[in-house]
Amino acid sequence: MQVSVMFSGGKDSSLSAILLEPFFEVELVTCSFSLLPVGEVAAETAERLGFPHRIINPDVSILEKAYDMIMEDGFPKNAINFIHKSFIEHLAADSNVTFIADGIRRDDRVPMLEMSQIRSIEDRFGVHYMCPLKGYGRAAVNELVNKHLVIEEGLSEDVLKADYETELREMIARNHGPDKIKEIFPTHVQSHVIERKRA
Amino acid sequence: MQVSVMFSGGKDSSLSAILLEPFFEVELVTCSFSLLPVGEVAAETAERLGFPHRIINPDVSILEKAYDMIMEDGFPKNAINFIHKSFIEHLAADSNVTFIADGIRRDDRVPMLEMSQIRSIEDRFGVHYMCPLKGYGRAAVNELVNKHLVIEEGLSEDVLKADYETELREMIARNHGPDKIKEIFPTHVQSHVIERKRA
Repeated sequence: MQVSVMFSGGKDSSLSAILLEPFFEVELVTCSFSLLPVGEVAAETAERLGFPHRIINPDVSILEKAYDMIMEDGFPKNAINFIHKSFIEHLAADSNVTFIADGIRRDDRVPMLEMSQIRSIEDRFGVHYMCPLKGYGRAAVNELVNKHLVIEEGLSEDVLKADYETELREMIARNHGPDKIKEIFPTHVQSHVIERKRA
Repeated sequence: MQVSVMFSGGKDSSLSAILLEPFFEVELVTCSFSLLPVGEVAAETAERLGFPHRIINPDVSILEKAYDMIMEDGFPKNAINFIHKSFIEHLAADSNVTFIADGIRRDDRVPMLEMSQIRSIEDRFGVHYMCPLKGYGRAAVNELVNKHLVIEEGLSEDVLKADYETELREMIARNHGPDKIKEIFPTHVQSHVIERKRA
């Protein structure tokens, strides 16, 4: 059984892949709209983790629609959720994909599918959508991360990560300058995986 | 890192243990009030799965309180949730226990802790409460079960399983006769694990 793990290069998606590895053939998949080399950054991390990796490039109209949403809302939640759902649907539409894994944790709020959206995607595309960390709190995730990964943490603007935020921020910066990003996105700590600890 | 997996001998708790096995030292723990030999039945299944197992015997007053609740309510939800929470707190109070794993799935409704109850238990006892299957839907669980376990399924009254329902049903039968059970518990299919498939 093969699983496609949605991969940002961060600790949660990396740990999800590691937890699935004994039970599935794992491939890591990164979503990029080609504004920044986020796919390549993720590919490098994937190689250090020891998993095959591919980049998918959904239509840039998805990023543009997310950009319109965030400019209208003034906050990122709906835009991030929209890209996230579009990425999952893009993956689910691939006839070679049966299991999709998402790195969200118990305490995550964004991005997040509603239960009705999950059921709809599973039914429409005949896939299994799985969140291996959904039953784990922050402290338990940290224990597992410390055991299996070496990470660096930094503020969002200093760590290049292949999450949905990165290219959305870039599009805002191109259109409005970097100060606009600070208005819209709360400053928060990002993790980037450096390497895997092997026993 | 050792994890104590709450174990009923059913497919969900068995699969939870299997998913955790590569990352933790797994022990299976079954809760019994000694009305029926459910602990011994679970111990036999645990041996076939290849995991160490122990039985804990919380005070029978917990079963009695659950019995009062179910007789007053006329349905099992609150009584089952009460035993479940008491079992977790009993485990969490053990100073050798740091990680507790529960076999509930994404689509389960009972038993279920509220998020505030989970946080309260984690904070009060300094434990991590984890649900390895919480991010998996029924179909994905079934795929994993088929790959790793041989199970038998049958109606609740025909399959002796070490879940909370079993001894609660027995207490009702002793006090009111077997017909009372059918009034209170919906008939549903139970699974019991026969053996583990090894690659």
